[in-house]
Amino acid sequence: MVRQNGVGVQAEDTKICVVMVGLPARGKSFIAQKAQRYLQWLSIPAKTFNVGNYRRNDAPQPTADFFSTTNTEGEKMRRAAAEAAVADMLAWFRSGGVIGILDATNSTKERRRWVLETCKAEGVEVIFVESKCDDENLIMANIRDVKTTSPDYKGQDPEEAAQDFRKRIKMYESVYKSVDEDGDEEDLTYLKMMNVGKQVVINRISDYLQSRVVYYLMALHIRPRSVWLSRHGESEFNLDGKIGGDAYLSGRGELYARKLPELIRQSTGDDRPLTVWTSTLKRTIATARFLPPNYNQLQWKALDELDAGVCDGLTYQEIKNKYPEDFEARDADKYNYRYQGGESYRDVVIRLEPIMMELERSEDILIITHQAVLRCIYAYYMMKDSEDSPWMNVPLHTLIKLTPRAYGTQEERFPANIPAVSTWRGKGSTAKHEDPSGSVM
Amino acid sequence: MVRQNGVGVQAEDTKICVVMVGLPARGKSFIAQKAQRYLQWLSIPAKTFNVGNYRRNDAPQPTADFFSTTNTEGEKMRRAAAEAAVADMLAWFRSGGVIGILDATNSTKERRRWVLETCKAEGVEVIFVESKCDDENLIMANIRDVKTTSPDYKGQDPEEAAQDFRKRIKMYESVYKSVDEDGDEEDLTYLKMMNVGKQVVINRISDYLQSRVVYYLMALHIRPRSVWLSRHGESEFNLDGKIGGDAYLSGRGELYARKLPELIRQSTGDDRPLTVWTSTLKRTIATARFLPPNYNQLQWKALDELDAGVCDGLTYQEIKNKYPEDFEARDADKYNYRYQGGESYRDVVIRLEPIMMELERSEDILIITHQAVLRCIYAYYMMKDSEDSPWMNVPLHTLIKLTPRAYGTQEERFPANIPAVSTWRGKGSTAKHEDPSGSVM
Repeated sequence: MVRQNGVGVQAEDTKICVVMVGLPARGKSFIAQKAQRYLQWLSIPAKTFNVGNYRRNDAPQPTADFFSTTNTEGEKMRRAAAEAAVADMLAWFRSGGVIGILDATNSTKERRRWVLETCKAEGVEVIFVESKCDDENLIMANIRDVKTTSPDYKGQDPEEAAQDFRKRIKMYESVYKSVDEDGDEEDLTYLKMMNVGKQVVINRISDYLQSRVVYYLMALHIRPRSVWLSRHGESEFNLDGKIGGDAYLSGRGELYARKLPELIRQSTGDDRPLTVWTSTLKRTIATARFLPPNYNQLQWKALDELDAGVCDGLTYQEIKNKYPEDFEARDADKYNYRYQGGESYRDVVIRLEPIMMELERSEDILIITHQAVLRCIYAYYMMKDSEDSPWMNVPLHTLIKLTPRAYGTQEERFPANIPAVSTWRGKGSTAKHEDPSGSVM
Repeated sequence: MVRQNGVGVQAEDTKICVVMVGLPARGKSFIAQKAQRYLQWLSIPAKTFNVGNYRRNDAPQPTADFFSTTNTEGEKMRRAAAEAAVADMLAWFRSGGVIGILDATNSTKERRRWVLETCKAEGVEVIFVESKCDDENLIMANIRDVKTTSPDYKGQDPEEAAQDFRKRIKMYESVYKSVDEDGDEEDLTYLKMMNVGKQVVINRISDYLQSRVVYYLMALHIRPRSVWLSRHGESEFNLDGKIGGDAYLSGRGELYARKLPELIRQSTGDDRPLTVWTSTLKRTIATARFLPPNYNQLQWKALDELDAGVCDGLTYQEIKNKYPEDFEARDADKYNYRYQGGESYRDVVIRLEPIMMELERSEDILIITHQAVLRCIYAYYMMKDSEDSPWMNVPLHTLIKLTPRAYGTQEERFPANIPAVSTWRGKGSTAKHEDPSGSVM
């Protein structure tokens, strides 16, 4: 069997259930959501099954007593919810799912053994991902978050909600066993994280996809930070409606480069220096050249524009004339279409993967790059799917600031108010400069 | 400050001392050697300082008693050796070194604390890498290895050497403390590996370069395995002396593709299926197409030939005529020269890095790729430096089998005995097909 691309090697028949483990308010859902987003971005079918959502069908707003070990009725319902979630997950695996994430406390050995055996019987590998936390500040922040966002406490008094939630955590603590705490779970494949990455224990990770997930989770940190994104200033090729190339900035592009330092100060609100990543092409490097000298700058080949191969330097009209079949094939499946001798959006995502890994680990990064590359990076943060992301409008002369939060990413835009052509193109169009008002983003 | 490329981000002023920890015969030197090779391949200045080598200056062939805790004379000499090694390492850091590896047992808390404080005082970060092992088979294999390869036992009776070495291990065991075993070293940055990767504990890994080293070490395994390398069969562009492109195989190239299955059987000695990685270009895919149907095949964009940019499809003579300055600049520094709109060897190494990571984790892989890419992969295994590797001769129609061993890599070549042009080119030459007898490899 022949497969393309680097993502999913050896994963052909691999199915993995990532089983979250940990007390409430330890960031399990945050981790699950990040992992799912990362995997989907790499076109790996991934889905989270949250046991709490199943339980809420029968018990929408239970009090802490519901979670007591002596509450047999509560325990029955909680077990039924877990069974329903796992059953749905297994059905999803049978229909082509690759990585299922079981988001629940799974805080006892018995429950973990049951998940393991149930998955094994269907040929699904299991990896336990435990989040432990004894940092009171982190836990309190999570509790605050839960009492304001969890459907369990919707419409209730915040103080009472927090109190009840703390009581619920106590209930779990009484039966909670950390994975392999007693040394009798060493046959399990697991990743244990203390205080989100301060210490990590990895046990029996073997294959490609497992280690990929583990490496990604290890790169996560939860210090608050933002990422700044910008396209290069308007280039001479932009003016001509030509794609690719290595052109200089236009006069207006120069103005944008000169204004960028001010835009950044406006967006940060202080004088802290950012680290700047550009591509190796003239137009991004030129756009960065008026930034303060205490900004470190790094040029990445991996941030170069999508390689248009034989179409490099052509206008869309020229492409349509010269390669009509390619022009049509690209519009039919823009994400997967690979230019002759060039790249597809999928190829760009693969070469960007180490950069995203790096970004998760870093703080205060400004990326100055190109339309297609910026679309891929934006899609990662904003969970745009691969059908839409290649069609998004990312205007020139606009600084974008993204700030990841526990649930989703917050976006701010800072337009430089310096005119520039539009390089957005709608499906089927060969216009040099099209009005993007009908675009996705 | 502006830097190029993706390797070494945030590492600008970073200096890291990797301090090996563990009893004798736990594979410390193997790990140190692999890490050094990997880092050097990425152009990160790395060097191993083996305390045993320093000790041998004063005590070339000591018996086990030398290592007894009650042997004050021995202890003094061993401490002096550690001090000399660390002093040399710090001098090397001052002259531009980035990652120094201190290869010794470092088996007591006191010794580790001393190394930490000494490095810290010079602004060098410290990461402890401990190899623990309770797998008797692994330990015995290491002991067998040491008694035949260690200068400590050169010329001695193998059985007596093994016995003495076991006694030496016992001496160390009496004082050995695993890192953070008592919970009072949790301020240290460390990586602890049980039985080479079965279980891994990671503590306080923070920055980019640290996590890069850790991720690489986690990918290592020590099951015996080989890697098979081949260029595509001779292509039509090869016949014309043209570089790059996406040409079909020549008639002789087709013959090679047909013979490849037989060459592989000859090299494996059995019928086990290999996994085949090709590039996305026609000539490598065509070369793989007669392999048995139980060989999984995967196409990697990252295995495509070095992108010659504006020179793609030209002969060397045409390049010299059209871009004389480029032709000269490339010959002056072939590893770092980047074709206009294309790539350098350094760029290729960066995009190959995930592939090498993958290779370290995999077994039974056959890579069918291109001259420049194969040179980079070969350089990784054979520790060729970046000055020589771009000039190596990698003939067409030859299967290469590489088998990593504890110290170095073993190479076998299986020529198909099907004639092909030479695509090797000496410095300054514009010949289409040059005799490679004066080449490096």
